[in-house]
Amino acid sequence: MGNREQEGMMTVLECRPLGYVSSCYRERFGIPRQPGLVTEARAILTLLPAYSGAELVRGLDGFSHVWLIFRFHATETQGWHPTVRPPRLGGQVRVGVFASRSMFRPNPLGLSVVRLDKVESGGGMTRLHLSGADLLDGTPVLDIKPYLPYADSLSQAEAGFAPEAPSRITVVFSVRAEDQCAREHDQGINLRLLVEQVLGQDPRPSWRRSDTDERVYGMRLCRHDVRFRYRNDRIEVLELVPVG
Amino acid sequence: MGNREQEGMMTVLECRPLGYVSSCYRERFGIPRQPGLVTEARAILTLLPAYSGAELVRGLDGFSHVWLIFRFHATETQGWHPTVRPPRLGGQVRVGVFASRSMFRPNPLGLSVVRLDKVESGGGMTRLHLSGADLLDGTPVLDIKPYLPYADSLSQAEAGFAPEAPSRITVVFSVRAEDQCAREHDQGINLRLLVEQVLGQDPRPSWRRSDTDERVYGMRLCRHDVRFRYRNDRIEVLELVPVG
Repeated sequence: MGNREQEGMMTVLECRPLGYVSSCYRERFGIPRQPGLVTEARAILTLLPAYSGAELVRGLDGFSHVWLIFRFHATETQGWHPTVRPPRLGGQVRVGVFASRSMFRPNPLGLSVVRLDKVESGGGMTRLHLSGADLLDGTPVLDIKPYLPYADSLSQAEAGFAPEAPSRITVVFSVRAEDQCAREHDQGINLRLLVEQVLGQDPRPSWRRSDTDERVYGMRLCRHDVRFRYRNDRIEVLELVPVG
Repeated sequence: MGNREQEGMMTVLECRPLGYVSSCYRERFGIPRQPGLVTEARAILTLLPAYSGAELVRGLDGFSHVWLIFRFHATETQGWHPTVRPPRLGGQVRVGVFASRSMFRPNPLGLSVVRLDKVESGGGMTRLHLSGADLLDGTPVLDIKPYLPYADSLSQAEAGFAPEAPSRITVVFSVRAEDQCAREHDQGINLRLLVEQVLGQDPRPSWRRSDTDERVYGMRLCRHDVRFRYRNDRIEVLELVPVG
């Protein structure tokens, strides 16, 4: 390995974006910690012209899911930390960055499997319609790979402190919020279900999760500021304020 | 997305190796096409000093499997192709590069889940002992992430032209090859099982796979040149020639 290793240590790999995601997640706060937890979260990956030839996605529509390797673009300038405090350990216990999916990594690479709803390609433009994504709007994507269950699906794998999906909290809607969801059929998105799935993750920082937390939170979701609070073991959706 | 996209299009992400893999695969020929198919393939990922603090892998030993994002270093100078001919389609049919796991990709990033047998860390050195890897010796690794079954395991995913693991071919050993395997207990590796698993993938190029193929092939595996041929629907291992 001698020479190759020496060369490798000197060289960096320059990765270029293949395209960008547009999604309903307009800010980091509230984004689920893993993909697939919020099935109603739709996103579109638009490839750049250099990667938009229809032949590049030939056969891709036979796959129900794809891997995206992406760049944690919004946080990468903050660098990385040797240890992180995962929310599921209450934010108190530190684990190594390589034992976590934290975005503050030596190389700011993210990995998500998302549902591929539709491949739209033609006229020099390719768009992948996705759901279950946990990607911030504007995320640059570095690679797309088909999900291969025979190689990628290991249901019996042991997963230390994260053996199962985080528990969900009950979400209730105020009359006002119910009315607002009913009026909005926000570009074909079931806004009520989206809000319920996103807030069911309890997006509050773990250090705020006490029974006496009375703060009103806001979260940007699609074209709304979703206002909510915690009360009696539930999340109450107060209202959805339209924003620019 | 306006400004962010503009910036993203201008900038490249510089990824640095975190460490290097040493494995029994000393050349591309014969490497299984996905990880996990050859469980006996052991590898060691040695992290570089900057990433070798014991705290970076704290808690990692609770996970049975990890994702590696790595660099297809041996082939990256060959660039990428819009379409590829997957071996499982007989090497005749072209599919888009994004519908394949081909190494000839716009960003030469590989993705493999491997079994984590042991985490060895201390004295400023960290080594991950892996099995089921499909990585060429010397592969630079760009990221390590824990495998999370609740997010990553999708046994029901549909996978187009690659719905299941490739079929295996029967492997038989000559008396000479049996003897050689019995004599070698190559650094704790079960060489016979490794050879059987690797050749069971039928590493011959798809365009050579005819019933009249009489060629004798050689494959570098650990410290051996494994000589084999195809006959009567089986792979015959002729001998294992030790090499430097």
